[in-house]
Amino acid sequence: MADRDGPRLDPFEQTPEKDLMGRIGRLWTERGVLETPYMFPVVNPLTQPISPRELRERFGLGAIMVNAHILKKNFGDAVVDKGVHRFLDYDGIIATDSGAYQILVYGGIDSAPDEIVRFQESIGSDIGVILDIPTPYGANREEAERGVLETHRRAEEAFGIISDENMLWIGPIQGGTHLDLLASSALKMSSLPFHILALGSPTQILKQYRYDLLSKMIATVRSIIPPSKPLHLFGAGHPSMFSLAVALGCDLFDSASYALFAREGRYMTEYGTMRLEELKYFPCSCSACSEYEPSEVLKCDKGFIERFLAEHNLNACIEELRRIKQAISDGSLWELLGQRARAHPALFRAFAGMSSYSDLLERHSPSTKDGGIFYFDRLDIWRPEIQRYWKRFLERYSIPEGVDELIVYSGSDPIKRLGEEEIRRTRFFKLINPYGFVPWELLESFPLFQTEGSGTIEEVPEEAISVFREFLRRNRGVRISSLRISGRPLQRLKDICEELGIPLEINVDLGPGGRTGARTGSAKHI
Amino acid sequence: MADRDGPRLDPFEQTPEKDLMGRIGRLWTERGVLETPYMFPVVNPLTQPISPRELRERFGLGAIMVNAHILKKNFGDAVVDKGVHRFLDYDGIIATDSGAYQILVYGGIDSAPDEIVRFQESIGSDIGVILDIPTPYGANREEAERGVLETHRRAEEAFGIISDENMLWIGPIQGGTHLDLLASSALKMSSLPFHILALGSPTQILKQYRYDLLSKMIATVRSIIPPSKPLHLFGAGHPSMFSLAVALGCDLFDSASYALFAREGRYMTEYGTMRLEELKYFPCSCSACSEYEPSEVLKCDKGFIERFLAEHNLNACIEELRRIKQAISDGSLWELLGQRARAHPALFRAFAGMSSYSDLLERHSPSTKDGGIFYFDRLDIWRPEIQRYWKRFLERYSIPEGVDELIVYSGSDPIKRLGEEEIRRTRFFKLINPYGFVPWELLESFPLFQTEGSGTIEEVPEEAISVFREFLRRNRGVRISSLRISGRPLQRLKDICEELGIPLEINVDLGPGGRTGARTGSAKHI
Repeated sequence: MADRDGPRLDPFEQTPEKDLMGRIGRLWTERGVLETPYMFPVVNPLTQPISPRELRERFGLGAIMVNAHILKKNFGDAVVDKGVHRFLDYDGIIATDSGAYQILVYGGIDSAPDEIVRFQESIGSDIGVILDIPTPYGANREEAERGVLETHRRAEEAFGIISDENMLWIGPIQGGTHLDLLASSALKMSSLPFHILALGSPTQILKQYRYDLLSKMIATVRSIIPPSKPLHLFGAGHPSMFSLAVALGCDLFDSASYALFAREGRYMTEYGTMRLEELKYFPCSCSACSEYEPSEVLKCDKGFIERFLAEHNLNACIEELRRIKQAISDGSLWELLGQRARAHPALFRAFAGMSSYSDLLERHSPSTKDGGIFYFDRLDIWRPEIQRYWKRFLERYSIPEGVDELIVYSGSDPIKRLGEEEIRRTRFFKLINPYGFVPWELLESFPLFQTEGSGTIEEVPEEAISVFREFLRRNRGVRISSLRISGRPLQRLKDICEELGIPLEINVDLGPGGRTGARTGSAKHI
Repeated sequence: MADRDGPRLDPFEQTPEKDLMGRIGRLWTERGVLETPYMFPVVNPLTQPISPRELRERFGLGAIMVNAHILKKNFGDAVVDKGVHRFLDYDGIIATDSGAYQILVYGGIDSAPDEIVRFQESIGSDIGVILDIPTPYGANREEAERGVLETHRRAEEAFGIISDENMLWIGPIQGGTHLDLLASSALKMSSLPFHILALGSPTQILKQYRYDLLSKMIATVRSIIPPSKPLHLFGAGHPSMFSLAVALGCDLFDSASYALFAREGRYMTEYGTMRLEELKYFPCSCSACSEYEPSEVLKCDKGFIERFLAEHNLNACIEELRRIKQAISDGSLWELLGQRARAHPALFRAFAGMSSYSDLLERHSPSTKDGGIFYFDRLDIWRPEIQRYWKRFLERYSIPEGVDELIVYSGSDPIKRLGEEEIRRTRFFKLINPYGFVPWELLESFPLFQTEGSGTIEEVPEEAISVFREFLRRNRGVRISSLRISGRPLQRLKDICEELGIPLEINVDLGPGGRTGARTGSAKHI
């Protein structure tokens, strides 16, 4: 990282630590480097329960976000004179939000788009956001389209105004649940010299637990914008959903939820939110929760409770992001998603919906891993390792010339029971869950050997059977013999062989000295 | 709790906080009250990384366990002279283990069974264990039976020796995976005046991740011993499995794992164990993990690392037990099990195996809950609320005299479309996932109304269909009309009606003014 001064279009550096669409990255700013995934805690100077200095010194948070609209309206020149860092008493990275969301919710517009860009520059913000038009949840197509076009117009205009070459700018992508608009907005914003792109307007969607919709929106945007651009998700700040968003490619978040929830007496956990009164025990070891019991906190005054909860909520967010980074680093992000999916049916639906993005995930995930992978149930077939195995098996594996028999089996390896000549003319496929019929010679390769699973071969997923069917369709001219295959897998094998006209011999008896010469009469022929 | 002095056979008090077979309880000892579920951290005076005084003062741990065999062998009279509390500098509850497990593993026997009972009394232990014969994992039936009988003999003998009336005694139940032996041992030990019963010998089973076997053992024992007896699980101390054990009825644990794992550089989490070198981020907010980053800890000397990890591991155990207690208190223990099941396929198998204990769970779980319940997938049909609904529906709900038609429907309620006379002769059943066909009048009762689920009615589990089949078998003489039912549920309805000879009218058109008088020709009749 020799020369990082001056204007940089790509201040984001991807590290080799990747899993699914998630990655650990470094964002280079004027004030230092920010490791991602990261959540900017949003600071409200009017009501802040934890001072910016404490956020940095006690919580180790090297970047915060503050609303430029609120700063301008309430403090105006005082912030310009001091600069936002001195004004907030914070020497880390300060991102400023344009306040577009507040204007959407509370109405009114105090500043013209160009004014708010200039204001962010004038206060010395490190990362700014143009004044976009958020797409309200439930907006019809025309309304959404108008907002998208106006956002694009303002984005172009902004680059005529921006003069501070060291500031980074976030380009908000709009369109909401109109995925085609979202896609065209992503394309447009990617063409402008933004350093960071952002998915706008998810707040209502998050409030309504529509994680399925959110997933679609993130995947749509991420499949269009280049991997070199960090993706920010506006207004997302609950530990239960970070892993989903990161797995689909979000790098940055900002949220005031830690403080807003605290004001409402709400306690965040990675599996949901609880009211303080509902807690008899703190399911947490953080600095706040290890000091007190819920009954003690409840007896304190409102200010203490708010401060206590803000501290805990922030710790819960920080802990979950660390856990996600560790999962990216050790390749267990899918497993983490599966755990978080059981925090709420809405998250479960989104996890179940990962099947829609399996191609995208497969393209971006690392092709091998140090650790093993876990297989729990059918939803796990969509993990990239399993999808990739099936894809590569179909693309790369074929039956060599001269082989005219496939022996499909379960249990112990029958190869030693065959004579040399017979082995030359035979290929062996072992039935394993969840991969299906797997060539014997691939059994010890990744990910087959590294998969620790639950379930029996009877539960082998239908998708695995379909892959084998497709393989047989592409590789004609063999007969199949089965050994120790029964139940549903055998039935499906029979169906496929009948459909494709492949001779099938069931429960072939290879005998103690190999099968050379004779077949037993016990075999049934179809 | 007026008079709690003197000998007490039942020093264990159950609170109303219960979920599944788990409960929050209070164990009254000479030195104070212990809230359960609880894990006694095992203290080894020869190698202890965290002093007993710190365990109490910094970690808030009001009870520890120490091995009487190790005390006697290494310190003998010094412990007797000082008393174990002064010797260990710990003024909380001290439980002593007899050392039977060490004798099993390392062989040799230094003390006769009566000597070790007397020794525990003489040092002033608060809770003692008789010298039992643990059943080694893989022991054949005869070997196991010999150990069980000898344990019973020693247990009877112990009550001839015990003189300290204020001490509590733990009776170990043996038999290992020989469930009939385990059952007879549970029965025998329950008949003796032990204050606490314990499931012995799970260490090898835990080491081999055989949580499925462990579940069977706990359920076997818990179905025999009275609820008033707390159940201790020897040697269990990993946060990933506490919830499973508690859900099946374990109240107490003891373990030195926090320290032993620390010595081996291993870091415990609720979803598994990692080596310190594998960690780039600490996925935890505890006092240890919020001070340092893994790379910093790795640079320190062996002693510091061991101490650091012991501290974290202990915090991880404490946090998980708090989380479990909170889950018992708010009725979400099943949800917690589901999350932990995705920590490892072995835990998932055990969770999937909960179906075997659904009767036991159903009998002991509270019959109503303040909060809602989540339904994620088919494994959740075994949760007591759903099982109980089906059971009660079959036991208590019947079709009144004069009703000759059942309208089964999905979507919006069709009642208003019918005339008064027709309503009198009709009952309505709505198809919902996962409950199946549910009487209209029960839709807003617990747990139906309180269930938040994922999945569509197409995914309604086969078990729900079977319940409706059984209901129809018991309630003859009606015809069925279906409205907006299609796909697999309709097919199954057709199968059942055909099997039971019930007339079925499909996609009945109730018309705008009710159906009185005429039926449309569009309906198909079977």
